[in-house]
Amino acid sequence: MRVLGIDPGLTRCGVGVVEGVPGRLGRLVAYTVVRSEPDEDIAQRLLHLDRSLAALVAEHQPESVAVERVFSQHNARTVMGTAQASGVAILAGARAGLPVQTYTPSEVKAAVTGSGTADKAQVTSMVTRLLKLDAPPKPADAADAIAIAICHIWRGGTRARLQAAAQAAAVSAARSAARRSSR
Amino acid sequence: MRVLGIDPGLTRCGVGVVEGVPGRLGRLVAYTVVRSEPDEDIAQRLLHLDRSLAALVAEHQPESVAVERVFSQHNARTVMGTAQASGVAILAGARAGLPVQTYTPSEVKAAVTGSGTADKAQVTSMVTRLLKLDAPPKPADAADAIAIAICHIWRGGTRARLQAAAQAAAVSAARSAARRSSR
Repeated sequence: MRVLGIDPGLTRCGVGVVEGVPGRLGRLVAYTVVRSEPDEDIAQRLLHLDRSLAALVAEHQPESVAVERVFSQHNARTVMGTAQASGVAILAGARAGLPVQTYTPSEVKAAVTGSGTADKAQVTSMVTRLLKLDAPPKPADAADAIAIAICHIWRGGTRARLQAAAQAAAVSAARSAARRSSR
Repeated sequence: MRVLGIDPGLTRCGVGVVEGVPGRLGRLVAYTVVRSEPDEDIAQRLLHLDRSLAALVAEHQPESVAVERVFSQHNARTVMGTAQASGVAILAGARAGLPVQTYTPSEVKAAVTGSGTADKAQVTSMVTRLLKLDAPPKPADAADAIAIAICHIWRGGTRARLQAAAQAAAVSAARSAARRSSR
């Protein structure tokens, strides 16, 4: 499974591509930060983000896209731009025909560090360890995007196990019913 | 000048196309509301909005796009979705190569009613009167989008006058300089 994780932002938007299967992380394929200047026109900034994300999806051919959810209690001065960037990020996945999943910041932190209240340094440190990198990815926005992709791979595993369990239960129930009716 | 105004929203996104020149409003070309269901997947909702706006731009061939600005003090439960929709709306104009302008709600209200604190009913009533419509546009989201387009046409007038004044001043300064140097 190859996942493209996005930490949305207007000035800096982190992108990380990770390969792996639930329970076993593979390798870090690529990471980057898409930037734009705060004094640029908002339409040109969103267009630049849209084109950059479309190019990254085309280059790395992920099977799914994971985007961090934005909350209104974040920095009020920048939250609207971040939300607009997240709309464009989600759209980039949808326009490529890929499944898009969103995760809260605490889901992402918990997935990589075990704690939903971990700080940036802990997230970066765990991302470095989990993917066996020689050095921590820089800047931090990229580390967060990589963490989002890791979260998706692991949560995909949980979902897959839940689906398998539900299927097994359904099969077992059908067998019991078949046994009862054949008596 | 033909302007496509957008009142961004995820559940209901108003769109109004108005023709006119600064100082003289023309006609209401078209209006509609793009809808999606709150229980639908966010990626599919943004994709539907993106495709609908692209189709409306292609159909009505506006020369510019005007979008209402979203503020964080709005309804906190829906503001993130509205901001994401506004990102997609601004992007729709930019992707079509059109100039995109954003206006605050009070700029729009002031442009059509003379008061930045006018209510929805006043805005609808003035839009109906200014465009000489037989009946008020329904639903109200469409009326707001039409008001945004009207605001852009009138503000465009102000900008055009300011530019003309600046140009005239520059020409006059150049003439004075030429007169001084020929003495």
